[in-house]
Amino acid sequence: MRLVEFPLHASLEGFDVVDEELVIGGIGLRRLAERVGATPFYAYSRSILEARARALRAQLPAGVHLHYAIKANPMPAVVQLLSQFTDGLDVASGREMRVALDTGVSPSLISFAGPGKSEAEISQAVAAGVTLNLESERQLDQALAAGHRLGVAPQLALRVNPSFELKGSGMKMGGGAKPFGIDEARIPALAARIEADGLALVGFHIYSGSQNLNAAALIEAQRLTVELGLKLAGSLRSGVRWINIGGGFGVPYFPGDKPLDTSVVLDALAPMAQAARASADAHLVIELGRYLVAPAGVYVCRVIDRKVSEGQVFLVVDGGLHHHLAASGNFGQVIRKNYPVAIGTAMGRAQCAVQSVVGPLCTPLDLLGDRMSLPLADVGDLVVVFQSGAYGPSASPTRFLSHPEPLEVLV
Amino acid sequence: MRLVEFPLHASLEGFDVVDEELVIGGIGLRRLAERVGATPFYAYSRSILEARARALRAQLPAGVHLHYAIKANPMPAVVQLLSQFTDGLDVASGREMRVALDTGVSPSLISFAGPGKSEAEISQAVAAGVTLNLESERQLDQALAAGHRLGVAPQLALRVNPSFELKGSGMKMGGGAKPFGIDEARIPALAARIEADGLALVGFHIYSGSQNLNAAALIEAQRLTVELGLKLAGSLRSGVRWINIGGGFGVPYFPGDKPLDTSVVLDALAPMAQAARASADAHLVIELGRYLVAPAGVYVCRVIDRKVSEGQVFLVVDGGLHHHLAASGNFGQVIRKNYPVAIGTAMGRAQCAVQSVVGPLCTPLDLLGDRMSLPLADVGDLVVVFQSGAYGPSASPTRFLSHPEPLEVLV
Repeated sequence: MRLVEFPLHASLEGFDVVDEELVIGGIGLRRLAERVGATPFYAYSRSILEARARALRAQLPAGVHLHYAIKANPMPAVVQLLSQFTDGLDVASGREMRVALDTGVSPSLISFAGPGKSEAEISQAVAAGVTLNLESERQLDQALAAGHRLGVAPQLALRVNPSFELKGSGMKMGGGAKPFGIDEARIPALAARIEADGLALVGFHIYSGSQNLNAAALIEAQRLTVELGLKLAGSLRSGVRWINIGGGFGVPYFPGDKPLDTSVVLDALAPMAQAARASADAHLVIELGRYLVAPAGVYVCRVIDRKVSEGQVFLVVDGGLHHHLAASGNFGQVIRKNYPVAIGTAMGRAQCAVQSVVGPLCTPLDLLGDRMSLPLADVGDLVVVFQSGAYGPSASPTRFLSHPEPLEVLV
Repeated sequence: MRLVEFPLHASLEGFDVVDEELVIGGIGLRRLAERVGATPFYAYSRSILEARARALRAQLPAGVHLHYAIKANPMPAVVQLLSQFTDGLDVASGREMRVALDTGVSPSLISFAGPGKSEAEISQAVAAGVTLNLESERQLDQALAAGHRLGVAPQLALRVNPSFELKGSGMKMGGGAKPFGIDEARIPALAARIEADGLALVGFHIYSGSQNLNAAALIEAQRLTVELGLKLAGSLRSGVRWINIGGGFGVPYFPGDKPLDTSVVLDALAPMAQAARASADAHLVIELGRYLVAPAGVYVCRVIDRKVSEGQVFLVVDGGLHHHLAASGNFGQVIRKNYPVAIGTAMGRAQCAVQSVVGPLCTPLDLLGDRMSLPLADVGDLVVVFQSGAYGPSASPTRFLSHPEPLEVLV
């Protein structure tokens, strides 16, 4: 593994550089672009995906399972690959559920989350034997009704809205009035309804944050989450199969971001997993999306114009915010920062200049690199945006200004 | 026309309400949802679109033409309709150009803007006889080469990056180093190259802002823009056909926004149009997208769950940020504000309560209405988001979490 260095950005493992050209999955970037047949495209590295999942799984304490949250990257080939290196899949819509089932993974290892599941989706999940993470009493009503109608015992877990607030994560979801999950105080009543229907509760789902780079905050969130799960499990007649504590492992996107030390976080899980086994005969599930896939993907576009306006250099590329909204800084960010952007056909070249990378859209929002120090590039060069394996095409307005959609390859 | 009132939001013209039900294009909302066959969907009102275009055109001084900027809403039926009530169309991509040509509008009335046009798009525009608003020397090279190759005289206009900064607009594009257009100082050299090739320059394109609700700022931008256009036209051997001064007319989205008084803005254009005619034998073009279409559209989704979490009411609907990114507050906004949201099946009902409208996605970003005072609603009710005719599906991450895409109807 060779480290790709960015000034101020965290180093990225797993990519090679040969003769100043980025190599992905053993293929030089120019040849890969020819193989794909068009720019822009997303390329996901099979070897990096596998390495990340394997490395993480090797660190897991006994009694902790790893699920892949498909929403981060629902490309069927990626899901198929990760299904081989994880213990289960988490889905967030009927379509994601179909992709998950197509991998051949046992439905009992697939869970379906979402505060707004439609009645049709609930019925489909029951028919498939997929575990529903129920987020409201109505979802429970519909799942029980579907079970009776289909003559199938629905696999039911309860998503809990904890009464505590989780600090330090990029996105807070627990604590206070929330549309997600069922208020902690209502859980025993719903669990009792499930047991009264002759069903065993599969488990609890407690979300513990997102895109968190702070190990101490993650450990604290996990501790509170497991404690709550065990307290709730203790009130049941029978045990639960699992306590899903969500994910929240972050990746470094921006200058100054430091990679998360996962070993510290996972080591801290060991006694919690032991407690879960001892007191509830349950295993813990962590559910990761972004952490597994983001560093394995690059977005590749081509320089189609090089303009100098009042002394400032603009590399105009054929891709932009319509394909990669997050890299343009327009999705959830308050202050725009640059993703790790590089000239994939001039990696490590010494002579750099301040250049901006802009997309083809008629809006100043269409900015991939704002005045970055990059090797001198010109028309025909390929620009790559690293850390692009998660929330790329599926989280971007791909029809904006009716430009072509991005292609995706797994190499 | 009946006015639909929102507390703090500007009133919206053109929608009817019958028995507490919103009526669009003469069809009650419930029946329209049945006709569409599924929620969520976007509905655009034919009568409002026509009325807005007609009203604006009736205010235009002599010598000012109105173009529709397709990027705001590229639905072919909408483009077809507006092509009948405008003097031309502006496109921003090859696909938009095909939609424009399909309307039957003369190619000479279609202009193609964009800082990152591909060589293929430039060639297609030359073949079609569409006017290219050139944004770089390379685009000029490619257009001239395509003209020679195809044996066609390319229709060429120059987009100018003015040296002045426009104030008071929602989005600043002129002034300083920019990827858009050609620096003012370089224009004479490029115009001379076009004339040396035996071609007459069609005109100039000078962008004057976007989503501007301040009439005085708009008038000032127009004045500077026309002055610059006339100065540049004066340096040419032959005149130009048009000076396209962009658009920038805003619409009120948020509480406190006041509608733009277009008559003031257009009256101020009269002497400028006269000057353009007298000194350059040119007409002015204003190019409007959002202003024409935004108020004609509503986004309609259905309440599929009603949850109370720690005393706060959440209406969970089947649509959200994946269909309507702007209404969720995640596209370009710094501080989230509510769009005009209403219960379309309980319009004007007196008994209101504070309720939040949230989408089906597993993220707190998926919020359409944050603690709004709305009529009491329940499962089955239809929620509408007004001011949704522009930058809706095409500006939203419709594949996010692999939920179904929104449908669109023109009624």
